[in-house]
Parts: sequence; structure tokens; C-alpha cells
Amino acid sequence: MSVPPQMLASVLTARHEIALERRDVPEPGPGQVLARVTAVGVCGSDTHFYESGNVGDIVVEGPIVLGHETAGEIVAVGPGGDVSRVGERIAIDPQRPCRRCPHCKHGRSHLCPDMKMYGAYPHDGSFAEYVLVEDDFAFAIPDTMTDEEAALVEPLSVAVHACRRAGVTAGSRVLITGAGPIGVMCAQAARAFGATEIVVSDPMPLRRDYIAQHGADEVIDPASTELADYAERFDVYLDASGNTRAVQSAFAAIRRGGTAVLVGMGALDYEVPIAMLQHREITLTGTFRYVNTWPTAIELISSGTVDVSGLVTGRYGLDKTADALMKAKTDPTAIKTMIIPALTEFQDAP
Amino acid sequence: MSVPPQMLASVLTARHEIALERRDVPEPGPGQVLARVTAVGVCGSDTHFYESGNVGDIVVEGPIVLGHETAGEIVAVGPGGDVSRVGERIAIDPQRPCRRCPHCKHGRSHLCPDMKMYGAYPHDGSFAEYVLVEDDFAFAIPDTMTDEEAALVEPLSVAVHACRRAGVTAGSRVLITGAGPIGVMCAQAARAFGATEIVVSDPMPLRRDYIAQHGADEVIDPASTELADYAERFDVYLDASGNTRAVQSAFAAIRRGGTAVLVGMGALDYEVPIAMLQHREITLTGTFRYVNTWPTAIELISSGTVDVSGLVTGRYGLDKTADALMKAKTDPTAIKTMIIPALTEFQDAP
Amino acid sequence: MSVPPQMLASVLTARHEIALERRDVPEPGPGQVLARVTAVGVCGSDTHFYESGNVGDIVVEGPIVLGHETAGEIVAVGPGGDVSRVGERIAIDPQRPCRRCPHCKHGRSHLCPDMKMYGAYPHDGSFAEYVLVEDDFAFAIPDTMTDEEAALVEPLSVAVHACRRAGVTAGSRVLITGAGPIGVMCAQAARAFGATEIVVSDPMPLRRDYIAQHGADEVIDPASTELADYAERFDVYLDASGNTRAVQSAFAAIRRGGTAVLVGMGALDYEVPIAMLQHREITLTGTFRYVNTWPTAIELISSGTVDVSGLVTGRYGLDKTADALMKAKTDPTAIKTMIIPALTEFQDAP
Amino acid sequence: MSVPPQMLASVLTARHEIALERRDVPEPGPGQVLARVTAVGVCGSDTHFYESGNVGDIVVEGPIVLGHETAGEIVAVGPGGDVSRVGERIAIDPQRPCRRCPHCKHGRSHLCPDMKMYGAYPHDGSFAEYVLVEDDFAFAIPDTMTDEEAALVEPLSVAVHACRRAGVTAGSRVLITGAGPIGVMCAQAARAFGATEIVVSDPMPLRRDYIAQHGADEVIDPASTELADYAERFDVYLDASGNTRAVQSAFAAIRRGGTAVLVGMGALDYEVPIAMLQHREITLTGTFRYVNTWPTAIELISSGTVDVSGLVTGRYGLDKTADALMKAKTDPTAIKTMIIPALTEFQDAP
Repeated sequence: MSVPPQMLASVLTARHEIALERRDVPEPGPGQVLARVTAVGVCGSDTHFYESGNVGDIVVEGPIVLGHETAGEIVAVGPGGDVSRVGERIAIDPQRPCRRCPHCKHGRSHLCPDMKMYGAYPHDGSFAEYVLVEDDFAFAIPDTMTDEEAALVEPLSVAVHACRRAGVTAGSRVLITGAGPIGVMCAQAARAFGATEIVVSDPMPLRRDYIAQHGADEVIDPASTELADYAERFDVYLDASGNTRAVQSAFAAIRRGGTAVLVGMGALDYEVPIAMLQHREITLTGTFRYVNTWPTAIELISSGTVDVSGLVTGRYGLDKTADALMKAKTDPTAIKTMIIPALTEFQDAP
Repeated sequence: MSVPPQMLASVLTARHEIALERRDVPEPGPGQVLARVTAVGVCGSDTHFYESGNVGDIVVEGPIVLGHETAGEIVAVGPGGDVSRVGERIAIDPQRPCRRCPHCKHGRSHLCPDMKMYGAYPHDGSFAEYVLVEDDFAFAIPDTMTDEEAALVEPLSVAVHACRRAGVTAGSRVLITGAGPIGVMCAQAARAFGATEIVVSDPMPLRRDYIAQHGADEVIDPASTELADYAERFDVYLDASGNTRAVQSAFAAIRRGGTAVLVGMGALDYEVPIAMLQHREITLTGTFRYVNTWPTAIELISSGTVDVSGLVTGRYGLDKTADALMKAKTDPTAIKTMIIPALTEFQDAP
Repeated sequence: MSVPPQMLASVLTARHEIALERRDVPEPGPGQVLARVTAVGVCGSDTHFYESGNVGDIVVEGPIVLGHETAGEIVAVGPGGDVSRVGERIAIDPQRPCRRCPHCKHGRSHLCPDMKMYGAYPHDGSFAEYVLVEDDFAFAIPDTMTDEEAALVEPLSVAVHACRRAGVTAGSRVLITGAGPIGVMCAQAARAFGATEIVVSDPMPLRRDYIAQHGADEVIDPASTELADYAERFDVYLDASGNTRAVQSAFAAIRRGGTAVLVGMGALDYEVPIAMLQHREITLTGTFRYVNTWPTAIELISSGTVDVSGLVTGRYGLDKTADALMKAKTDPTAIKTMIIPALTEFQDAP
Repeated sequence: MSVPPQMLASVLTARHEIALERRDVPEPGPGQVLARVTAVGVCGSDTHFYESGNVGDIVVEGPIVLGHETAGEIVAVGPGGDVSRVGERIAIDPQRPCRRCPHCKHGRSHLCPDMKMYGAYPHDGSFAEYVLVEDDFAFAIPDTMTDEEAALVEPLSVAVHACRRAGVTAGSRVLITGAGPIGVMCAQAARAFGATEIVVSDPMPLRRDYIAQHGADEVIDPASTELADYAERFDVYLDASGNTRAVQSAFAAIRRGGTAVLVGMGALDYEVPIAMLQHREITLTGTFRYVNTWPTAIELISSGTVDVSGLVTGRYGLDKTADALMKAKTDPTAIKTMIIPALTEFQDAP
């Protein structure tokens, strides 16, 4: 497999400015592989970086290639690497932890303070033709899995991690607030973990309709139904909205001894019904990325347990990255938008 | 709903002797309900009592009504009970723990030393027209669930308890030895808990064929395939055979840090590969009955997560209890035999 | 052992009014024992009932005997009870759960919606000469344990339950806010669970001095030291203050993946640093009473692992109940006040 | 700090042959430090290698420096390392896992199939003046901790890992078989985890006497007392003997739902009371090395929670390594023998 010396990459150069540039293809170091990118999902955090130049504490201070929901094919391995992997189709976990801190050693490397996260400044991501990956974070996928399914392993991982932290298991009753892409993934993952009742609340009718077809047993319009009416009904509550009011209103619907996991990002601080949390011994926590989820998420998709077909609602070449980034904002029917480098129409970089 | 003063009951009077007797219908005490029996599964332990007069330490010393996989309908409640439950269709957990010992208080009432277990000497079971039950062990079933499905909640509970103790979760790889009724239930339950690879070993071709259609991804004939070939492949191993050799050979197929749970009953003592258990930090344990499984198992069946249709391969009236008890022994194609009191052909009791 | 027909009891008849009354000694029912009260601790909730007539949702609507931190001696058993227990010295868990709801069956009976709690309206407690108890909530104590130590099993239970929910184990670093009686018990319990670093924050110098001698490795004055200076240092945070500001400021001192448990009662709702909780995957929960803690707490005291000597700073007869209830409020050096019925000076009831 | 070009090392050249050799001091690579060895404990596995040339599957096929219970002082760091650590006193975890396999990533790196274990063929250990260590497996110790205490962190780690796997917590009742060095460490660790009753069985009176002074509440002579007499008494059973008969007899003393952890190495296979394990739902597992135990074990010793003073019963220079290795075999009063390189009397290497 021949690798060209240069590649196209979509570079965020300033707020609201994406430039399609020619860059040198990077060379894999020890323990790394070089992957040709076949499909990359657009994440809400990519759009947030594009629009505002930051996500939480992470501020873009220079040119950066976004993109971290990535499928690819290994085209080269670093020194000492396993050359037999060249040609392998992969789904990519975009994390590069230090492997040496207590968090890494205890199996919670996603909390590593020295994490290098691809696609988050200053580590270039995969809105490009090629990307470097840690070899053990490049996971082989079966022939039956499509590139787009492989890219969707990342958002599914978010949901798998949430279900693990929430302890979803056979027979769980699960409430989800937010029916966007993460809400849909949470519903799918909860089902895969054995949940037998999945109720989803979202104010947007289109999203409610979609999730009613993709994992929810019941949908709620929060404008007309109080979550408090589901008094102490749910074992697990997952927030996929980041909406303060949604979270606050959901507590009354959690059973004594139940668990609430905040997946969506929202306000820095807000009021929590503390006395209720105490009297009912509700456990509240959040998720930060994911850890050790790729093998599970790949299995869930490839075994047919989780069905992600139909989630992709738009496909763009690298030359249309800006359009792709704004699609989710401008089109309420968009669930997941993909960048497909092979669809890029040639144009000279500026 | 009128309850007659007497009922028919199949009474084990001696080894290999079942008499259809007329008995007084019992009256529910405080905290009890009286149920009309609609369907009762025949368990291997019933057959064992019938043939040998004991199961382990439990020895039959007088007349006993067997039967503990029971569906019914509440026809009366004890003093102070909730009369609105009369008419409610139920699945019955046949346990009556003391509710006061440390085991009961810690949520492991199935290990209560003062357990009264219906259908195990000296507590009459449900091969009869009516049976008494603790009101909180009589679980309402939805209209959509058949009586036979409700009776199958008991064997499914065995498997649910095994999967909980084994920690089966989304993405688990599970090995099962034994493809009889409990093996089938284990495969179904493991799937419901999220297992994505379920491999079952059984020497009988008919059973392998059956389970390949009812939950297994792959079946193995132990006469031709060594489990050791699946080196360290499985997260979880469930034995549903009680066969010493099967258990011993399965250890090599369990991954480091994996779990083995013995569900089937077999020899009192046998050799275990202790050094392998230590070097791989494999966890070995067993299951004894079940605890808090009815709500989950009812949900799994009624939600369609577990499909038990097609498991019932024979139906008999109370007058044919002896035939039913021997069916599993004499017919290798029999999976689950039911006693249906309503099918009883009238005959005078001796 | 002869039991008189009547007894003295301190009855809360209205806010700020305690009457010493003669009442009939109650008779134990099935599953109950009658205990002669030997020592009862005064809890902050008793004082709260006395002063304001409620604790949270529980409102005093009629005469009530307070008191739930109780040591005693069995003087009679109910019908069918074990008469050999007469004469047994006991520590009393003041809970009477329904034993039949899902919470009770799962080993979390403290969350039972039908809980009857002694000493909380409308269930009379033990500021009296005799009290009725469930026989399995009356725990034998060794001869070497004093009555006052047995009464202190209750507040120690609060702390044992908190340490269990927090997962305190060998080597844990624990931060505690609040150095009142519950803070002291939390420090002692955390030590017993294996914590090797226990830091306690309290604004009152007397309390800081006391806890520095009774379990804390280090004390902090929040007026001069920011908890944020202990950046991500602690595995576990226990609040024993109920103070909103204390809880909010403690989050920054919890390590990624750490746990915060709210033991003290305070405001109904307040702001929590949600983004920090998410980014660090901090787990936040509370405690409500305790469950299955008596055997452990008795062992911890009787084995010398926890030293409660010196905690009792005042002793009163039943005739001085009102004084005892106000002692903790009026005397900052008071740690734990005891009602000792045997110290009651005779007086005619009004 | 100047490091000489050569050092003395005790090299196992054949069964029963140890040569004191001059070797080049190794140079630390990236991520490594070079430590001057200050104290090394002699382990039973060292003696086993010396006598028989193997421990289990690990066979000595060439010259090897044994020794893995090591205290030292950092004298040099590898390229890019933190030079400020030179001079730091350390306790050394002798493991070097791959950091990339699923076991490493899940926080169970001790089960890594590509583990490089210092002091186990073919990786040289620390019966030498200097040794190389992974920088993140070299743990700083406080000034108050002696070198010998730092070397004892390794055997304490074995016990800490066992207590974690067994779930020892406040109030646990623990049975230990075997009162050798590991048994003593298990008793000490169990106490540190909160156990309030620790009973130890050993046939040797000297060992029983020793452990009765160092952690046991009660000692048993198995020649005169049946463990079965302690019917279902213990929450946790730890085997530190590797003796088949001891393990088999201990099962009857474990409570329903209790845990048995095999720490001592013994026979490859043996009979286990399987029906008892099933009926009581006993969990049986083993320990293999340890993982993430150094910080905890250092804290336990330095905080005074675990007292290892008095465990060291012999000290030898490198020139007396063979004597040290045989000491535990020949002297029943020997608990822990140390190699102290500074005690080495000069002699020309052969």
C-alpha cells in the first residue's frame, strides 16, 4: 500500500474559519499506526469549537484539525510494529493516555491528567485523509461492519460508558432526557445492557418521533408531562441534554437507591434537590469521555444488538467541512453527519 | 369468585407412587393469598424426588405435593390482605424465608437457614388445583403473558440469578456447558444481559440443534472439540450440566480475571484446577435457587427480550402427573413439561 | 424479672414542652421484646423536634416519646419468642421496616416506604423506662460493653453506613466537614475502615481540638484555609455539617473518580459544581439512616477498634429531659448527652 | 551522586549455586530509574528457584539475579526523566507490564501476559548493588520509614491484594490457614481493612505463638481442633499455606455467601467441596501477585496501621546470599530474612 507524501486536511484556523490545506502525511512513531481515514462523524463538540473556539477549559490557540469519531484503514505501522496489520480496517479510540499515572494504572485512563485527545487542541484529529493513532487504540472491525458504523462506535462508546457507570442491567427501567444523537445512542445502549423500559423526554417532536423508532418504549413531551408524575419509577436516569431544568425535574422520577448519570454537558453549576438525593440515597455522577468501550461497542454493532443504520443523515467531503459542522445546528432532522474524505472534490488549497 | 371446599392434588406417597387425592382447600393466613393453579412446570428436582425420594439433604419422609414452577390466579386473600388482588393473574416465587435472619436482611434471603420452600418436603407445592403463597411472592403478570410463560418465570429466574452472580453484561463472551432446559434458559438470559457471544457445549445432537435455534451463537460437541481450544476466550462460564468433566475442561477457556458459576447440581466433591484458578485469578462460585428475580424475569418475557415460546413440549392433567414426571427422562426431545390442572380428567380418588 | 404495670416516660406534648408522665408499660407482640431502657443518647433530631415540632417531612401532630439511641435489657418477650433472651443486654436498632417491599427484600430496608421508626412521630421512642423493640433489631452486647457504649452504637451506625456507601477502605484519604458528634463518629469509623489520612474542617476551635484527639490526623479552620488547596487529594469526602458552603467548597479537594457522601442534613436544594462533578466523574450521594450496621458497630466498639470513651459529656434523668435536649445547643463543649432513666429523681407526674 | 561502573551481584548459575559476580551497572532507559539497593527480602519463591530451578511454569534457563522485595535509593534517571528524583528513597514494585493489553487497560496489569517480572527468569532482580526499575513502579517512601520496612512493602502487598479480592471490611470475621510470613502479613492486612475477628490455624507451635502476638485474635492447632467446629462463622477465608487439606477443611467454616481466597501456592489440582460451595454460594478465587498495592501498603506501614517491626529475623550481605536463601528452610523461627548489600564483606569474584 503506497502512502503519498502529502494529504488534504480541514484546518480550523480561527472561529468560523476552516481551510482545506495540503499537509505532509505524518509518520508513525513506535507504538503508532498511520490510518487512511474512511469516515468521520461530526460531533457537537466539533461544532462548538468551530463556533466559539473552545469546549470548556480547552481553548483553541492555533490551527487545529478537528474530528475524533473515526473509521479508517491501517496503511503503515511505526518502528517495531506489527506489519501484518497493514490493510486492517479499524475503529479508532481517539485517546492517548500517559499509561503511568494512578488513573491509568487503575483502569480509568480516561481521567488521566496528561491525556492527549485527538481532535482537541493541540492534537490534530481526523478531518483529513490520514491520521496517526496509538496501535492499541486502533481496533480491528469485522468485514461485515461498514466504515460509517465504525465511525459510530465513538458516540456509542459515550453511551456504553454511561450505562456502565449507571449499572444498567437486565430489567432496568431507564429514563433519558434528550433525544439528540447521544440520547439515541443511550437508548440503544441501555437496551443492549438489558433495560426493559426506556422512556425518553425531549421537547422537539421530530426528535421524539425519531427515538420512538430507535430505542424508546415511550416518549414524553416535557411541555405537557411532568417527570414527577413518574414518581420513583426509574432505576436509572441518564441525561443526554445538558439542560439544567431537565435534570432538576428528573430527580423525582428516580427510585430510592437509584442512579443519575449526567452525560450531556451544560451549565457549570446548578441547583440540585439535595434533600431528595439524601432521603432517597440517589447516586449522582457524570461521564467524561469513555474507557475500554471500543471492543464492547464494536461487538454490540457487529452482533446486531445495536442498530445504528439510519443514523447517518448527511455525508460531506473534506471541502464541505464547514457545512457539515453547521448541519446539526441548522437542520433539526439531522441526526449524525459524516465527513467522507473520499467524497472530497478537488480544489487547490488557498 | 367462589372457592370450593375441596380440591384435587397429586400427592407423592412413596418412591414412584403418585396418588390423585381430594384434599381440603387451604385457607390463607395473614400475609398470604390463595391461588388457583393454572400451569406448573415439571423440574428435574421433582423427577428426582419421585425417583429417589430426595434431592441432596432434603429427604421425603411423608406425603408431599411437588411442583414449584407455578402460574395461577388469586382467588382469596388472608386476613387484612388486599382484596382488590382477587382475580389477579400471578407468577409465583416458591420461597418463604424467615425475613429476620442476617441473610434475609442483607438481601440474600435465598440463603436463609429457615427457608420454607414450596414443593420441597415438608411444604406442599402446586401439583394441585389450589396453592397458598406469601402475598409478596405472588407477582402480577400482564394480560399479554400466558399462564405457561408465567410458569416459566421460575426456570428463567435460575438463569437470571446465575447471570447476576456471573456479572454478565453488554459485550460478554459466555460459555455454557449443558443444553437442557436450564442451559437454554441461561443462553436466553445471558443474551438479555447483553452477551454478544454465547457458545454452548452438549454431547446430545438434539439438544445442540435446539439451543442453536434458541440463544446459542455456536454449539460444540465435546466429543470432538476440546474446550481448551478456546484458550482464555470467555469472560463468563456457566455450567448447566452438573457434569464434573465438563466443568473441569471448561476452566482453560475462561479468561484471566473471568468468572465460573456452577448452576447444575452434580457430584458432592471433585477436582478443580486450583493452580490455574490462582494464576488467572478466576472466580468460581455456584447458585442456590434465586433471589429477587421474579420482577426481572417477568419483564424479560413480557417485553419480548426473552422468548420462551416453543419451550413447552408436553402438557398433562393432574391425573397424569407420574407420566409428566418421567417425560423428561424418557423423551430426549422434551424440553419443558407442564401440568395443567384444567386438563385433569375426572376420576375418583382412591 | 418482674415488670411493673406502669412506667415513667418523657412525653413531648407541644413545642418546647416535655411532660414526665406515668404510662402503662406496653406488652410485646409476636416478634417483639420489651426492654428496660438503661441509656439513651440525645440526637440533634430530638432537639429539632423539641424546638420546631418537625424534622423534614415528619411533623409532630400529637404527644410523642422521643429517643432512638438506645441501650437496654430484655425483660419480656412476645408470644412464641425466645424466653432465654430475658436478661440479655442489648443495643437497639430503632427501625421497623415492612420486610415485604422491594427495598426490604434487596437489603436496603432503611429505604422502606412503610418504615416505622421508633422515636419519630407517631412511634414512641425510648425516653422512658421501657420500650418495645422488634426482636431481630435488639442486638446482644458483650459483658465488656457499657450501657452508654451500647447507646452510642446508633450514632456510630450513621458513620458506618456512610463509610460503606463511600467505599472507605485501607489506605483511603478522607476529608470530613463538621466536627460535631457525627463528624467525630465519621472520623472514628473511617479509621476503622482503614483510612490512613483523615482531615477534618470545622469553624469551631473547641470542636477542632476535640476531633484532633479523637480520630483526625489534621484539622482545618475553613476561615483561614481553602479546601481547594487540597487539590484532588481525597478519595472520599464525608459531610457531617449540613452546611451548603462547606459542601460546595469541598468538591475541589476530591480526586477524579472519588466519592462525596452527604451525611449531615441541611438545605433542601443548593448549587453543586456540576461541570466539575462530570469532568472528574465524582460520585455524589447521601445517607438516610443506616441498614445492617448494628453487628458491625458493636464489633468495632467491643474489639476496641473504635473508642467512644469520653464522648459522653452529660447525663440526665428522665425528669431533666428538656435540659438534656437543650444541652447540645447551649454548651459548645457538649459532644453527646445521655438520658439515664435510673438517674430520674422521683416526682409526681402532673 | 556518583555511580560506579561496576557492581556486585549474586547470580544463580545453577541449582544450588550462587556466584558473587562483578557486573556492569546497567543504564536506565527512557521511563526507568537506577536504584542503589538498600535492603531486599528473601521470598519463598527465591528459595524455590534456588533449590529446584523453577517456580511453576517459570524455569531458570541461564544465569539470573533473584530478589524482588526491594528497597533502594534512586541514583540516576533515564533520558527525559525527572532528575529531581535522584536521592529519593523508594520501595519497588517489581512488575513491568506491557501497558497495552486489555488486562493492563482494565487495571489488572498483574495478569498481563507480557509481564516482565524482576527477579524471575529472565529478568534480573535485586540481589545486587544496583537495579533498574520503571520510574512509575518506584514509589517514594517517607523519611520515617526504614529501608527494611520499605522492602516489606512487597509481602504486605500480597496480603493487601488478597484482602481486596476477599472484600475484607470493617467488622469482617476472617479465618487464615498458615502462619508463615504471608499468613502474618494477611493477619496484619486484614486488621488494617477493619476485620474485628482474625483466627489463624497452623500446625507449628512457634508460628502460632508468633502470630498470636502479631495480629491473630485466636490461634488453632489443626491437629486438635476441627475447622468445621466454626460452622459458617467466617465472612472471609484466606489460605496462606498452600496446603490442600487445610483448604478443604476450611470450607465448612465459611458463612453462606462468604469468600475464600487462595494466596499460598500448592498442588496443581485438588478436590473442592463443590456441593457445599454451591449450596452456600461461596465464592472461591486466588491471588496472583498484586496490582496497585504499593501506595496503600506504604501508607499502612508509615501511618502505623500495620506494624512490621520485629518481622526481620536475619540480615546477610550479598556474599551470604545462599545462606540467606536456606535460612527460612532450616530455621523454624525465621520469619523474614533480608539481604543488605551494604553488609557484603569484600571478596574477589571468582
